[in-house]
Amino acid sequence: MGEIHHAEYANFSSSDKREALEQVLQSYDALVEGQTNWVCNLSNASSLIWHAYQSLNVPVNWAGFYVLNPEVPGELILGPFQGKVACQTIKIGHGVCGTAVSQSETQVVPDVNKFPGHIACDGETQSEIVVPIISSNSSGEKTVQGVLDIDCLALQGFDSIDQEILEKIVNRIAQTCKW
Amino acid sequence: MGEIHHAEYANFSSSDKREALEQVLQSYDALVEGQTNWVCNLSNASSLIWHAYQSLNVPVNWAGFYVLNPEVPGELILGPFQGKVACQTIKIGHGVCGTAVSQSETQVVPDVNKFPGHIACDGETQSEIVVPIISSNSSGEKTVQGVLDIDCLALQGFDSIDQEILEKIVNRIAQTCKW
Repeated sequence: MGEIHHAEYANFSSSDKREALEQVLQSYDALVEGQTNWVCNLSNASSLIWHAYQSLNVPVNWAGFYVLNPEVPGELILGPFQGKVACQTIKIGHGVCGTAVSQSETQVVPDVNKFPGHIACDGETQSEIVVPIISSNSSGEKTVQGVLDIDCLALQGFDSIDQEILEKIVNRIAQTCKW
Repeated sequence: MGEIHHAEYANFSSSDKREALEQVLQSYDALVEGQTNWVCNLSNASSLIWHAYQSLNVPVNWAGFYVLNPEVPGELILGPFQGKVACQTIKIGHGVCGTAVSQSETQVVPDVNKFPGHIACDGETQSEIVVPIISSNSSGEKTVQGVLDIDCLALQGFDSIDQEILEKIVNRIAQTCKW
């Protein structure tokens, strides 16, 4: 009777990209209130982002996270995601994800086939956006904890609106999780 | 040229349930060779299981994991999954997932509305199977580490074949991950 199910957070009705991605941000904030477990929070974040893009009819084929591998310095390891099976590890500095970490900067790649050293987990991916997750400690020291990675089956799948709002979302993720 | 992409592990061609789920098991084994990170392995396992059921036209709407919450004894916390946003935490002993842990036994639920104390993350779910992940240490001591949870939009979505092969898959997961 009037109960809200968690799954309903994954229902998006706006066809406007800015609106849909702002809804991801608001839903993420609502979901993680009092919850700092990074696996839990990144799992739900992947689902929110995936369903937002599906509702916008952007042919996103993968949305998820790579994080620092606690066992292997200099390496990222696969985190929670939505989509097909993915590469387990990526060297920092290699591929789009590894470059986003080594440069501490978002990579918007309109055509992955033109990105030097692109690592293809899925040969059908045409474009990609990768946003580094940068946490700060109490003394202001910044650490890259991993990346949000989104792949698209179309060329030029992402633009400055995606970058702007995904960076806001990732900034909230960086602040709300215990790494 | 002849390169195999990781995403191809998520392509299933068999319409036979036993064959498709056995393929999940084989793909899981191939993917986790030399990789013990549980987040990485459960993330790809969710994707394999999800895509197997989609290819079989079983209307699975959620496939993923809950694990012991390291911060809160007696509680499960959301792990990697495929599907819509999910409940973050579940008390052990409550709902289908919590019961699978407290009884250390698979729960096959043909109609979730008839399960006492069912916790609905998605009001559209009609049936569910939950398999406990039970690891053993070198002295043979068994510990439930979490559960595989799969939800279906149809009643009676799962039968003894699902149970049999999913228990094999979960047994491999229990053995191959560092918890």
